[in-house]
Amino acid sequence: MHHSTQQIHDFARLFFEKTGCRKEDANIIADVFLSAELRGIGSHGLIRIIDYYNLWKAGRLNTCPQISITRDTPSTAVVDADNAPGMLSGVYSMNKAIEKASACGTGWVSCNNSNHFGIAGYYAMMALEHDMIGICLTNANPLVAPTFSVSRMLGTNPIAVAVPAGSQPPFVADFATTPIARGKLEVAVKKGEKTLLGYVQDREGNPTDDPDILRKGGAMLPLGGSREYGSHKGYCLSAIVDIFSAVLSGAGFGPFVPPSVAYLPLPEDGNGKGTGHFFGAMRIDAFREKNDFKKAMDSWITTFRNAKSVEGQPEVLIPGDIEREQEQLNRQHGIKLIPAVINELNLIAVDTGIDMEL
Amino acid sequence: MHHSTQQIHDFARLFFEKTGCRKEDANIIADVFLSAELRGIGSHGLIRIIDYYNLWKAGRLNTCPQISITRDTPSTAVVDADNAPGMLSGVYSMNKAIEKASACGTGWVSCNNSNHFGIAGYYAMMALEHDMIGICLTNANPLVAPTFSVSRMLGTNPIAVAVPAGSQPPFVADFATTPIARGKLEVAVKKGEKTLLGYVQDREGNPTDDPDILRKGGAMLPLGGSREYGSHKGYCLSAIVDIFSAVLSGAGFGPFVPPSVAYLPLPEDGNGKGTGHFFGAMRIDAFREKNDFKKAMDSWITTFRNAKSVEGQPEVLIPGDIEREQEQLNRQHGIKLIPAVINELNLIAVDTGIDMEL
Repeated sequence: MHHSTQQIHDFARLFFEKTGCRKEDANIIADVFLSAELRGIGSHGLIRIIDYYNLWKAGRLNTCPQISITRDTPSTAVVDADNAPGMLSGVYSMNKAIEKASACGTGWVSCNNSNHFGIAGYYAMMALEHDMIGICLTNANPLVAPTFSVSRMLGTNPIAVAVPAGSQPPFVADFATTPIARGKLEVAVKKGEKTLLGYVQDREGNPTDDPDILRKGGAMLPLGGSREYGSHKGYCLSAIVDIFSAVLSGAGFGPFVPPSVAYLPLPEDGNGKGTGHFFGAMRIDAFREKNDFKKAMDSWITTFRNAKSVEGQPEVLIPGDIEREQEQLNRQHGIKLIPAVINELNLIAVDTGIDMEL
Repeated sequence: MHHSTQQIHDFARLFFEKTGCRKEDANIIADVFLSAELRGIGSHGLIRIIDYYNLWKAGRLNTCPQISITRDTPSTAVVDADNAPGMLSGVYSMNKAIEKASACGTGWVSCNNSNHFGIAGYYAMMALEHDMIGICLTNANPLVAPTFSVSRMLGTNPIAVAVPAGSQPPFVADFATTPIARGKLEVAVKKGEKTLLGYVQDREGNPTDDPDILRKGGAMLPLGGSREYGSHKGYCLSAIVDIFSAVLSGAGFGPFVPPSVAYLPLPEDGNGKGTGHFFGAMRIDAFREKNDFKKAMDSWITTFRNAKSVEGQPEVLIPGDIEREQEQLNRQHGIKLIPAVINELNLIAVDTGIDMEL
């Protein structure tokens, strides 16, 4: 069953209005949800409405926040998101980074007291229309064990970087610092399939192909998978994301990131406030004539796109290609939601009084 | 055979003086070489003197450069390194980033027209004594194939991030965006050993355990190794490093990075100038009270250090632990050079008239 972009946006918008969001805020949040669905990242789309719903019902989400800047310099700011839905923190903070970059070349914002913000790429891409490079990092629920450890200390902590080009579409990288996204484990569980060795370990740290191992005390592994294949580098990346997002801002770091679901308790040690994010914007003309940069970036993209591919394998991709093509398809044919998600959302609609059925 | 830190420093300093470096510049370069040897990263130590020697003899290195800033804003600068030894470009650029950060919170410098600069971590660590976070990226000779490709399009493009702490030693991550460093392949070749599958591929893109495959048209793989294990993420990381280092600065990108050895020709397509680097400095008090940050960082470090380790595996490490411990040992016992390297250096000493024997 396919839904129009308007339906997806309306549902998300109406839901957040019902939870007490200002109209303009609900609209911002719906933009981010729609973007996830359009780009084919359904794991960060409407499937997550229920998590916000439950957090809100549990009084763990402030839907009408007073987001504020608690410290700044010409090129930096720290944002206290007042326990907002992460999309509001993200858009506010990224706009601030862009404003700082307009004035002094670059802008860097670390944000505390936030919640899950959806796809990191959305905020990085906000920089593109300003002819800036956008950067976005966030920490997340601890699910990943550092190299040599059995303990879940880090989230899948993604890195997103968007770079404008000229006649070519922009370069948009947006990836978790684990070999696969957590959502792929969920899919394997639902299909009753095993997963590949090297994605997860059991509670003793042994390799396992059980995709349901997180519910049994296991952990995800950092990008690289094992020490031999560079998991210490994946651990470093995830740690850097955590430090920039949380230690710089005063948010909860590592094991102290609050869960994005209400059925898990808040961390006992209140080491920092909420979830942390980090945003960056760099004006390309702070480094180089705008048109020279864009021409060089076009050349970078075509050079890599034309790299010879391995026989029998796909063409070499530029980061962002897959999501852009998916978005074109979804705009044409509509967005496909999982039936179970549609049912869930319709129940939420009834419960919150949304006058709409998906 | 062990050498004192003084001997290592003297040799590098005298060598670069003989090639025409100013005394103060030769001293800077020797500092970086010594740091690599002390930290146990011998692959970036005196073993590389011969490469600079050959580049210099071939007229491909400017040992008495006029490094200059070609563009800047309050928080950014572009540096033209005038074909300098990379260490001079690195120290100049990082100092500029630190100066910008002192004035406006953060400083970001993209550098073109440079050469191999040794260990990226050296420049990132320069920020520490200023209570700043230091960041350093560089592109390098193309040896790595993007996911799905047989073509060598990217270097092992490292990422270094140094974060100051309070009573704990600093967090210092410095890693190539490949599963292993190129130097480990060389070691396997010299020992006549095979390497693990997943590090390299042959010229057709097939998996191979031949560590000498780079000489046979093969390529290194990005961090992740294969598509299933996230090599597209390693490719993204390496691409981001390349774009920040070269597209922002106007240096040669990807396949157009000039080789750091004289026996390989310069790239035919002069797409950009020389090797590119990227440097960042962020004042911690641009985000948070200095002491609060340091306390939180101490807490981050001890939290991760105390994570439970897998039975039979080492304790959980903090990035920088291994190199710091190695430096303590090396300062105590001296630095061990490979006999073949000592012979090579002694021949260079005779040739250039250095009055010193290692």
